[in-house]
Amino acid sequence: MSGFDRAEYAARTARAQALMARAGLSALLLTTEPEVRYFTGFLTRFWESPTRPWFLVVPAGGAPVAVIPTIGADLMGRTWISDIRSWSAPDLADDGVSLLADTLTELVPRDGAIGLPDGHETHARMPLADLDRLRAALSPRRIAGDAGIIRRLRMVKSDAEIAKIEAACAIAGRAFARVPEIAGGGVSLSDVFRGFQILCLEEGADWVPYLAGGAGPGGYADVISPAREVPLSPGDVLMLDTGLVRDGYFCDFDRNWSLGPAAPDVQAAHARLIEATRAGFAATRPGATAADLHHAMDRVLGGGTGAGRLGHGLGMSLTEWPSLIADDHTVLEEGMVLTLEPGIATPGGILVHEENIVVTRSGARYLSSPSEPEIAVL
Amino acid sequence: MSGFDRAEYAARTARAQALMARAGLSALLLTTEPEVRYFTGFLTRFWESPTRPWFLVVPAGGAPVAVIPTIGADLMGRTWISDIRSWSAPDLADDGVSLLADTLTELVPRDGAIGLPDGHETHARMPLADLDRLRAALSPRRIAGDAGIIRRLRMVKSDAEIAKIEAACAIAGRAFARVPEIAGGGVSLSDVFRGFQILCLEEGADWVPYLAGGAGPGGYADVISPAREVPLSPGDVLMLDTGLVRDGYFCDFDRNWSLGPAAPDVQAAHARLIEATRAGFAATRPGATAADLHHAMDRVLGGGTGAGRLGHGLGMSLTEWPSLIADDHTVLEEGMVLTLEPGIATPGGILVHEENIVVTRSGARYLSSPSEPEIAVL
Repeated sequence: MSGFDRAEYAARTARAQALMARAGLSALLLTTEPEVRYFTGFLTRFWESPTRPWFLVVPAGGAPVAVIPTIGADLMGRTWISDIRSWSAPDLADDGVSLLADTLTELVPRDGAIGLPDGHETHARMPLADLDRLRAALSPRRIAGDAGIIRRLRMVKSDAEIAKIEAACAIAGRAFARVPEIAGGGVSLSDVFRGFQILCLEEGADWVPYLAGGAGPGGYADVISPAREVPLSPGDVLMLDTGLVRDGYFCDFDRNWSLGPAAPDVQAAHARLIEATRAGFAATRPGATAADLHHAMDRVLGGGTGAGRLGHGLGMSLTEWPSLIADDHTVLEEGMVLTLEPGIATPGGILVHEENIVVTRSGARYLSSPSEPEIAVL
Repeated sequence: MSGFDRAEYAARTARAQALMARAGLSALLLTTEPEVRYFTGFLTRFWESPTRPWFLVVPAGGAPVAVIPTIGADLMGRTWISDIRSWSAPDLADDGVSLLADTLTELVPRDGAIGLPDGHETHARMPLADLDRLRAALSPRRIAGDAGIIRRLRMVKSDAEIAKIEAACAIAGRAFARVPEIAGGGVSLSDVFRGFQILCLEEGADWVPYLAGGAGPGGYADVISPAREVPLSPGDVLMLDTGLVRDGYFCDFDRNWSLGPAAPDVQAAHARLIEATRAGFAATRPGATAADLHHAMDRVLGGGTGAGRLGHGLGMSLTEWPSLIADDHTVLEEGMVLTLEPGIATPGGILVHEENIVVTRSGARYLSSPSEPEIAVL
């Protein structure tokens, strides 16, 4: 089935409202795609257009209220949200600000605080000048941070969410298995990238928001570059890292291949990455921390690559909280979905490996089908 | 060739600096993908990850300074930017804020103002709490708006930019011509969406960030929905609207098809849309305004669809300034790239048509290959 049933959204809203009450927030104000979708199921690629702001208000009780451009009212009307207030955007004089201010004034007492996410991995998707106008119109009501409520909620996935992430992982797994069809000596990396996105779509991806990778003799320079026209050559290591979407949820993992037989140092590096991944997996259980997983992998690796972390959360966004770094002491809970993403320096650059897992009651379970120590050969 | 040569970026920077001097700004602070790429050529799909902030400072003179996560330093080092300051993100205690504050303190006098885009179609891609910290660290230097400088610059395209948009349009045109290969009675809209994205990639798209569309008897409900599993049936009108990317630039246009012979009202609606598009095209010339184009199309249409505008700018983003609405009095200049996007109500819902054009010295030129009045039949 596509999306979730109404009970999932109602439960998310109730959980948010319980946390809001504890934090002294009379409403949440949400402006970004995953935040709005989390409470509504409103799924559209139209967020790609930066023109229009979109607002969702989660009040202290009852269902969320959408304050959105008219162009989205019909689609929002097909979700469980019934209170939909819209304006004809873009409006150069007042692009939803007074409609939003009126809505918040109605829902929030004069001495109330409105939670707008302001911490790590957040931003407010609206013009800063309009945010200033909104603050002025709402006074004496205050716009504060969201006390980490959105992070707290989104970090722990329901079984229905985990199933969607696992479905995305399975699609990517089938696409990775077919890479020999599209990659090989003499094929340019940009053609490999196009061909791999085609494989993802053929295997069932709705769209492919993320593909990065690299190729080079014995390793690659980084893991965020777009493709170049350079043809693959014997001795290259090819890496493809994809975040494809199925029904609104991402996978995010990569695979490495050697063009022809792998040099001993490449083979050793790949085996080390798998060993590190397995160490991270073994350390995963409720009660362990994000830092524990970092250390478990880092002990095997014995040094970083400059990427800054060894994995992260995953779900409605390509990357989510927490970060597998020494300073992130987030305590793992059943239902968190994580990537394990160790990297290692090689004589040719770096190698990075990535798997997706879910924290279970007693440990962890792979959502991607995990790689073996031997690097695949093309 | 991929990207632009150094002269393009140097010229953009010099134009910004001339406008900054007139506006009394000692620096620009940029945080979003197109803003950073506009001055650097830094092209990566890694912005899909919301985790890390990225900053670019355009000083009053000289080349921009990048303040970015370590994971991007290698890729940024391959652009014309040489002053690259990086930190190991994510850093939960200080995610680049003090490095950015130090950089701005060095480049901006104590009584200086820093321009952060704050107007329509902008947002600051960084946590609001970090923006507050940055303001405090910079005091008495002020963070102000950008006086519309980024909008002013990006709205007028260079010949090299126009060539890239035209290349993207040509790819989409070839993909649209092949739609009979993938769409027809009994095929679900979600399979049509997957198939069309594959066609875009086969024809040369680097990636397909946007695809929307609809299908229904005699029209569709909106133009922003993702695909549904419903199979196409005789009498349906199918619309596909794509924003694909080639070398960092978008096209954005759509095509309509009738499943089987078109009903007279559908045929009439489509012909009216083409007539409106042609009226918008005929009204386009330097000195005309965005509102003039709106009125030229609206006179033919005699009423809207709730979409809120009849076209918009296009380039590094799927949608850009200006908006073809009655209130947008932006004066057109040679080099602006626009979409003409009239919509019309039908008994079955709405029909929307879209073409891409560039403003020339004396009028306009189509970048997409324009449709004929007769709706295509599948």
